[in-house]
Amino acid sequence: VNWMDLTWQQIAALPDDTVAVLPLGAVEQHGPHLPVSTDFVIATEIAAAAVAAVPSDVPCVLLPGLCYTKSDEHHAFPGSIWLSWDTLMATLVDIGRSLQTSGISRLLFVNGHGGNSALGQVACREIRRRFGLRTFFTHPGVPVDQGGSGSAASELGMGVHGGHGETSLMLHLRPDLVHMELAVARVPEVLTEFRHIGFGKRTSFGWTSDDFGPDGHVGDPTGATAEFGKAFVEGAVPALAEVIGEAHRFRTQ
Amino acid sequence: VNWMDLTWQQIAALPDDTVAVLPLGAVEQHGPHLPVSTDFVIATEIAAAAVAAVPSDVPCVLLPGLCYTKSDEHHAFPGSIWLSWDTLMATLVDIGRSLQTSGISRLLFVNGHGGNSALGQVACREIRRRFGLRTFFTHPGVPVDQGGSGSAASELGMGVHGGHGETSLMLHLRPDLVHMELAVARVPEVLTEFRHIGFGKRTSFGWTSDDFGPDGHVGDPTGATAEFGKAFVEGAVPALAEVIGEAHRFRTQ
Amino acid sequence: VNWMDLTWQQIAALPDDTVAVLPLGAVEQHGPHLPVSTDFVIATEIAAAAVAAVPSDVPCVLLPGLCYTKSDEHHAFPGSIWLSWDTLMATLVDIGRSLQTSGISRLLFVNGHGGNSALGQVACREIRRRFGLRTFFTHPGVPVDQGGSGSAASELGMGVHGGHGETSLMLHLRPDLVHMELAVARVPEVLTEFRHIGFGKRTSFGWTSDDFGPDGHVGDPTGATAEFGKAFVEGAVPALAEVIGEAHRFRTQ
Amino acid sequence: VNWMDLTWQQIAALPDDTVAVLPLGAVEQHGPHLPVSTDFVIATEIAAAAVAAVPSDVPCVLLPGLCYTKSDEHHAFPGSIWLSWDTLMATLVDIGRSLQTSGISRLLFVNGHGGNSALGQVACREIRRRFGLRTFFTHPGVPVDQGGSGSAASELGMGVHGGHGETSLMLHLRPDLVHMELAVARVPEVLTEFRHIGFGKRTSFGWTSDDFGPDGHVGDPTGATAEFGKAFVEGAVPALAEVIGEAHRFRTQ
Amino acid sequence: VNWMDLTWQQIAALPDDTVAVLPLGAVEQHGPHLPVSTDFVIATEIAAAAVAAVPSDVPCVLLPGLCYTKSDEHHAFPGSIWLSWDTLMATLVDIGRSLQTSGISRLLFVNGHGGNSALGQVACREIRRRFGLRTFFTHPGVPVDQGGSGSAASELGMGVHGGHGETSLMLHLRPDLVHMELAVARVPEVLTEFRHIGFGKRTSFGWTSDDFGPDGHVGDPTGATAEFGKAFVEGAVPALAEVIGEAHRFRTQ
Amino acid sequence: VNWMDLTWQQIAALPDDTVAVLPLGAVEQHGPHLPVSTDFVIATEIAAAAVAAVPSDVPCVLLPGLCYTKSDEHHAFPGSIWLSWDTLMATLVDIGRSLQTSGISRLLFVNGHGGNSALGQVACREIRRRFGLRTFFTHPGVPVDQGGSGSAASELGMGVHGGHGETSLMLHLRPDLVHMELAVARVPEVLTEFRHIGFGKRTSFGWTSDDFGPDGHVGDPTGATAEFGKAFVEGAVPALAEVIGEAHRFRTQ
Repeated sequence: VNWMDLTWQQIAALPDDTVAVLPLGAVEQHGPHLPVSTDFVIATEIAAAAVAAVPSDVPCVLLPGLCYTKSDEHHAFPGSIWLSWDTLMATLVDIGRSLQTSGISRLLFVNGHGGNSALGQVACREIRRRFGLRTFFTHPGVPVDQGGSGSAASELGMGVHGGHGETSLMLHLRPDLVHMELAVARVPEVLTEFRHIGFGKRTSFGWTSDDFGPDGHVGDPTGATAEFGKAFVEGAVPALAEVIGEAHRFRTQ
Repeated sequence: VNWMDLTWQQIAALPDDTVAVLPLGAVEQHGPHLPVSTDFVIATEIAAAAVAAVPSDVPCVLLPGLCYTKSDEHHAFPGSIWLSWDTLMATLVDIGRSLQTSGISRLLFVNGHGGNSALGQVACREIRRRFGLRTFFTHPGVPVDQGGSGSAASELGMGVHGGHGETSLMLHLRPDLVHMELAVARVPEVLTEFRHIGFGKRTSFGWTSDDFGPDGHVGDPTGATAEFGKAFVEGAVPALAEVIGEAHRFRTQ
Repeated sequence: VNWMDLTWQQIAALPDDTVAVLPLGAVEQHGPHLPVSTDFVIATEIAAAAVAAVPSDVPCVLLPGLCYTKSDEHHAFPGSIWLSWDTLMATLVDIGRSLQTSGISRLLFVNGHGGNSALGQVACREIRRRFGLRTFFTHPGVPVDQGGSGSAASELGMGVHGGHGETSLMLHLRPDLVHMELAVARVPEVLTEFRHIGFGKRTSFGWTSDDFGPDGHVGDPTGATAEFGKAFVEGAVPALAEVIGEAHRFRTQ
Repeated sequence: VNWMDLTWQQIAALPDDTVAVLPLGAVEQHGPHLPVSTDFVIATEIAAAAVAAVPSDVPCVLLPGLCYTKSDEHHAFPGSIWLSWDTLMATLVDIGRSLQTSGISRLLFVNGHGGNSALGQVACREIRRRFGLRTFFTHPGVPVDQGGSGSAASELGMGVHGGHGETSLMLHLRPDLVHMELAVARVPEVLTEFRHIGFGKRTSFGWTSDDFGPDGHVGDPTGATAEFGKAFVEGAVPALAEVIGEAHRFRTQ
Repeated sequence: VNWMDLTWQQIAALPDDTVAVLPLGAVEQHGPHLPVSTDFVIATEIAAAAVAAVPSDVPCVLLPGLCYTKSDEHHAFPGSIWLSWDTLMATLVDIGRSLQTSGISRLLFVNGHGGNSALGQVACREIRRRFGLRTFFTHPGVPVDQGGSGSAASELGMGVHGGHGETSLMLHLRPDLVHMELAVARVPEVLTEFRHIGFGKRTSFGWTSDDFGPDGHVGDPTGATAEFGKAFVEGAVPALAEVIGEAHRFRTQ
Repeated sequence: VNWMDLTWQQIAALPDDTVAVLPLGAVEQHGPHLPVSTDFVIATEIAAAAVAAVPSDVPCVLLPGLCYTKSDEHHAFPGSIWLSWDTLMATLVDIGRSLQTSGISRLLFVNGHGGNSALGQVACREIRRRFGLRTFFTHPGVPVDQGGSGSAASELGMGVHGGHGETSLMLHLRPDLVHMELAVARVPEVLTEFRHIGFGKRTSFGWTSDDFGPDGHVGDPTGATAEFGKAFVEGAVPALAEVIGEAHRFRTQ
């Protein structure tokens, strides 16, 4: 069920433990081979499929996805349209406040863009404290630099943006928008010199995508396949449906 | 052409006098008979059709629509998800800044929600002054309280929200989401007592939709028809395409 | 009656449906022939005269005018002292909040500067929603680009700043400050090429005054007369007094 | 010379070491006997007289006074219209920025309201650092709690608001607005118990005027006279004219 | 070497690839058995020891620790002094800006409070983008809910606040401040019902510490020992010294 | 007693008229002879000694000092780490809000950095108004430009930063950090030309330390002695203890 399709009276009639699912994407450069919509497509497609797959005794509703988010790490490239940290935070807080006054008490972010993860968690706490909503933050798949899979071996664990995983997903979801003829490997091998600092390591670092070169992506999309993307989606959708179920019944005492 | 479908290099290659078209909608209550998506549906449908209708020598690109906007006047009703004035302003300014760094110099807002009009004009000036973009602000149809047509006579010029015009448009665009059986006339006739103050009059007034009663809409949707909506769209699309053409060649000296 | 002349106990004793009238002006360039005070003089003079003309059974009070407002469109010229959008908005909201705690429930802005109109309407809604005041926004005369009269034919509907109307008003109100010998016509005729975009047209555009040339004004002051100004004032004052009366008794249900 | 009376070209032609003089007042309760305009009247009258008294070889210009300022300490009383600290700070910074772009490099605040003193000094530094202006902050008379005179002995050094000094000044400047029949002494004698903490003592304290009782003023206006007020003005005006002269030639190396 | 002990000329003479190390702590409740300083003590002690252990060819400098940080999750308990998200973000950004103007280009946060992790990463990116500093974010030990060790088995992976690890560290570092007689196990076993949502799981959730009960801590401190704390420190210090070394020579191309 | 050493339950058990003492310092250049910690050392040392000297029937608690404060006047020198005015204000307000929820109703700032004085007073009022705390603001010694002693005659009343007083204090408190061999007199004698404008005079001025030359300090440290510093401390500590006592029993009616 889509929030956007309902009247205000239908929304008022939703059970108050309904889980509102909010996909977060991005409008940002994804290298020469992928469209700027990549993260948004992935988040909204998987979220919509998961909402459809949830058992009927779990009330949930799909909010319209938010595509303009925090892509400041890609500021140096044309095509990236990004909100500053305080604008995105204000947006998420405003949405949380509106849900409260709409009688909704559970909010799950489904985030397709790794650059939103940190601020999203700040927002989850703020919305919980100020408006009392139970808030949850998840990804269609766990980002590579946050411990997720989806990498090609050639990526050395650094396929964080426009690499094997995302390219495969787009080959499955929107093959018309993928330019495999322009796909090249861009893995910052120099990072292997560092034991402690790096993607997914003990010490994180503040980076922008132009730190790694002029192409914009970080990873190796050359071996991406629609099959891998399809398998990823087929795993992610039921897993996300389970997350929604847990969000519905979640309690801490 | 859709911004979201392009790679960053394709966007970088756009002519710098390309007109970026940004639909603005709302997620807000529209009375018992219309979905909360009403304004967003209208703005995005008409904007997309107009972009498609623009002659090929006018470079333009469609940005993804912004649905979470400023619906504070509907704060009292469930279903309205709204940004505060400063959040929306910050969002629009951030988008303007991102377009500048993307090499775009012309931005046209196509606004389906009257509550965004005033702030949108503030943003147009701010973006022009700070980032140098030529900015434009228009509506799929002129809002009733801003001099537009689309009213039924029974609305006494007050069909500003969920009335004859919007209901007809939705009967044409998304008839599956319209509940005509719940449509009732809600025209605040008391306002006819005032000569100077009122919708579209010399003196405007600050209102929220609960000022007029518990239903949420202001207007008379009972006579709405898909035919009227279709005719409206057929007039609005070419007119908007012309606006895009003018925005492309607009100059002030 | 002037707010500034009262003690706090006298203000506390005002009827709570008293209309507080707040003139908004500007400190901004008005071309080579008019002083930077132009908008402020017009707003304060007409507001004061209207308050004096209101029948005694309509309680109203004149607040001190706000001259530092939003003149960002004139930022490129010396003499313009302007608040950014958020500063002016915060100022208006703070005033609304203070009126609430002073027991006042009706606030009418009388705005002499077109550049304040959009933000002023945003403020009217914010103050209504947050503090419950009935808020109203009007002009001494309707601005030319918002459908008003006061133009010379030679202005082609574009006498928006320092043109026939404002110059005539100043010739009537403060002739000592008008330099007719420096008055020249500056009408951006190029705008007539555009059917949809322009002052007062369906599509507005974000402009700053240096977009039109180095003089600063937009209009044709060469035919301005004190007689025209006098007639304008004689029409505007009783009309504004009527607006105050309506603001006093205004209701929406 | 008044800024408001000039055209932008006249302002552009001012010498760049011109001293811009900005009176700061307040709209705030001043007890049962004085109007809410008290601080504004004092600041603007004395500033205007001083500007008129400055020798002709000292270029200076009078800005329109700012009456809506920071009166949060009087928030509990009707009649007080106050800006929050960040709104006033933003206003002063915006004015400083506008003066810079107007070619003015020296700004003197003449402050009639003690509650502005602290923030005014913060603004002076901010404007100097960000915009390079030489900034100065003074009072028509030094506030009692900042070491100034103007007290009656009966005030025990605590005539900080609506006491002997301000009442005398208003008896001289605007006797029509003074209600001596309502003037009563309100001196918080309990403060004499404290050696270190108090008005003008080593340790300041955060107070609001309702901390001292329901009347609003702090001081003893009962012995105020127009003669004292006149003498105060006659001393303050030439002193302020000298301050303007010093501001004109001030240097630090 | 401590920043605080240097003169400005000594700081100006630091190599520009000097790593500035900034400990982040908290002032927040840690249950009945630990002082509110716990996170700050741990971060500052380990950071200081690591700076002292760095080889002499790695230039680094210790900044004074920041104890007032973001403890909004503990807002419900006395003793917690916390900055809101925007205040902390502004603080970190201001520090980054100041380091840039001090000629420092590498900044390492050593964070003892898990509640700062998300915002700290947002700050790392902001500071890199705006001021060009290489920024790094690490912990004395990895937080339990971010994949770290330090847990007791009885904590079921949920010893996130005032549990085995932190209590052991404090028994080693500041035994005088630990009240073992008040230590009780508070492990929210109900969370084991959830497969996807929980501390350190795929889906994070927004929590405040009062969600888990009235004591404030989350974990099992009952088996904590100074020996465990000592061993933790002895492992953490050289590891952090290595991180500093890597931060000094870190590069991305 | 130190806040940081207490558990939340111990803090909850403090009497609600406990005086919380918050030292404010700075991290800022102090000329070639003093460390950047100067103000922080002085404020924290004297505050701690005073808290220790308070009679046992006066409940008070020492908060951890805030070293990152508002040193914008020293922005031009390496070593200064400073918060902008709004960041510091937000920090102080957040602390006040946290104390309120911790059950503390009296807050005394002990400020070692003159540049914090003005904003600190703004904060005192804001915290009083919004959270109801009694707030107080004092200095270890009164700043020279705010009427205090501690000057050498050679300073002509202008030893405001790194001069005789502060250098003597540091020779007493942290002689290891003082470089007397680099101490030179830097007194801006040019200021004696001005009768009204200057440090501690009727008219204050906005300055940054680079206005006075390239060294950074303002004063004459050449005659500073540890003996003078010791005597200063021996006077300041009992005086501050008395202030704490007064803050405990302070009332306004």
